Amino acid sequence: MTVLAQGARIGILGGGQLGRMLALAGAQLGFDMAVFSPGESDPAARVAWKHWQAEYDDAAALEDFAKACDAVTLEFENVPTACIDLVSSHGTFVAPGKLALETSQDRVVEKRFLNSIGIPTAPFHPIHARTQLGEALSDIGGHGILKTRRDGYDGKGQARLSSLADIPSAWNAINHAPAILEAMIDFDFEVSAIIARSKTGETTHWACPRNHHENGILVRSSVPSGLSPDLEIEAHAHARALAEALDYVGVLALEFFVSKDGRLIANEFAPRVHNSGHWTPELSQTGQFEQHIRAVAGWPLGRTDLISDGEMINLIGEDVLSYPQSLASNETLTLYGKADVRAGRKMGHLTRRLGPSEKGLLT
Amino acid sequence: MTVLAQGARIGILGGGQLGRMLALAGAQLGFDMAVFSPGESDPAARVAWKHWQAEYDDAAALEDFAKACDAVTLEFENVPTACIDLVSSHGTFVAPGKLALETSQDRVVEKRFLNSIGIPTAPFHPIHARTQLGEALSDIGGHGILKTRRDGYDGKGQARLSSLADIPSAWNAINHAPAILEAMIDFDFEVSAIIARSKTGETTHWACPRNHHENGILVRSSVPSGLSPDLEIEAHAHARALAEALDYVGVLALEFFVSKDGRLIANEFAPRVHNSGHWTPELSQTGQFEQHIRAVAGWPLGRTDLISDGEMINLIGEDVLSYPQSLASNETLTLYGKADVRAGRKMGHLTRRLGPSEKGLLT
Repeated sequence: MTVLAQGARIGILGGGQLGRMLALAGAQLGFDMAVFSPGESDPAARVAWKHWQAEYDDAAALEDFAKACDAVTLEFENVPTACIDLVSSHGTFVAPGKLALETSQDRVVEKRFLNSIGIPTAPFHPIHARTQLGEALSDIGGHGILKTRRDGYDGKGQARLSSLADIPSAWNAINHAPAILEAMIDFDFEVSAIIARSKTGETTHWACPRNHHENGILVRSSVPSGLSPDLEIEAHAHARALAEALDYVGVLALEFFVSKDGRLIANEFAPRVHNSGHWTPELSQTGQFEQHIRAVAGWPLGRTDLISDGEMINLIGEDVLSYPQSLASNETLTLYGKADVRAGRKMGHLTRRLGPSEKGLLT
Repeated sequence: MTVLAQGARIGILGGGQLGRMLALAGAQLGFDMAVFSPGESDPAARVAWKHWQAEYDDAAALEDFAKACDAVTLEFENVPTACIDLVSSHGTFVAPGKLALETSQDRVVEKRFLNSIGIPTAPFHPIHARTQLGEALSDIGGHGILKTRRDGYDGKGQARLSSLADIPSAWNAINHAPAILEAMIDFDFEVSAIIARSKTGETTHWACPRNHHENGILVRSSVPSGLSPDLEIEAHAHARALAEALDYVGVLALEFFVSKDGRLIANEFAPRVHNSGHWTPELSQTGQFEQHIRAVAGWPLGRTDLISDGEMINLIGEDVLSYPQSLASNETLTLYGKADVRAGRKMGHLTRRLGPSEKGLLT
């Protein structure tokens, strides 16, 4: 198995903040980090050793990128799978692989895959015509969420249905796209299981964070989550089973609802580092970004036990304008270098230490 | 006072590993980090938003760099002071300033400055001719170290004298350069005081590390140092007095011998982040690189209390070839991305957590 040495070149498909944090973590380990993305000023491009500025269907640019890199990874799950094929065809190692991408890019394929390996999800129906919606809604109990099968994020491409009367507006809200109708889960709270799997099949996980969303956007993740020890073990077992079924290399996050009757119900997974793991660099010895790079580079994985309790707060839109002035002494600030402050845009995040050692030290 | 916002551009004069770690820390805070250095593949250049590859006396390149940056700092103390003048002349804020550089660049000027503000050093004599050496050596007790006044580092440009017979070889060893003869200190161990000072005069310090050198090169720094609480307070008071006397902005390190009779005797200071502080990102909430960038950017300083005991081990020359394979579970690895492994070259470092929570968890 190839173990990359310092000075090796690792490419990232995608130029957002996840790519930026991966690039910084890779540089810390001595790698030259390359970024392939369409935007001239993409956050990851600004910290990269080299930036290939091109569209994801630019075969010539992808070939040049693939040949320049010793390994390639990605920072968002909607990278076209043709990209992965093209990079692989030049003999360059790519992780995560095509199966993980194909599975996560389509909500129906994803839920069927999860169910096939014993991971429960909400009841669901694939929807390709408005006429299917009435029967499907009745079948799942009269309340549901209609989501596009592909390309939704941060609550976009979704509509709630509470009665048959909601069907026309919901169908219009998702632009008549191929869809999935999911039953509403009466949940107590949400958690995610974030694990890493190495080329040798070794896995590590962090404590499950409890995730709080507003308007479909993650606003806070906190550890420990308050999940019972049994459910925490089950969540990690599900994430590990998923990583093994996908022959996955790198960091993967599996999101769950914790139902009011105390069951874990999987929502979706992300074949990449995840917003709900942004606290890991400060609150554990090995953060998710470093761990992902270690996995892709064929390195042994690092330790992930919790150093301190704490929480991660997303800075969304104008939240960021209060910093650095509002920074408290137990907070670490990470900003993504995005010039335009727009409503709903993730601009940075805070990690707050809340361990026993912090008591009395807060300003 | 200017407080830089995310997206502002901070330039670094110098392209080595200190610049690389400063650039990574600045990027984490959302800044675009620029590097000015002569070498195409310098470690810092490979992680920078933009690299000005030019010599330090290239006025046109410096002007362009100064105009592109909102603030400029440096990563080594031998940046010509003319550089600082030129960057300042374009209205760009530079820290540390010229006084700190001029003082630290000449060992005689440096020791006189330290003495003038009440910081004790070893007895010394400026030497500009071989004929002065006999009397000077007798005056300091017959044992001493002859060092070039300028440009020495990692034990280079130094020769020991134990008797008058050593004078010819020592004088040749330093190539007859303007020199300083320093008395040998009978020391128990070495420590450094690393502090940061903000634009508003706020200061913070980390626990003093105990530093172990071999062949003039730092090999290990550990915290806590074993220094008595009184001497630890005195070391920080000296460093603070120095920073105030220099009207310093940024991180500064002052090295001390701890004599066998329990006194602090200053050796030298570095107007920059320092190798003996490389453990600070892992073992305190705010590392020296982030703190330096905060100071230069006009931000409030971060918390610096010790999260865990630990030590930093330099990976010198072929040491690096054992990694990542030899990495233990309580160690964090940082590599500098240097392609050529050469004897005596600093290739990376390890930070080892040795806190109470680590007991029993070591692999």
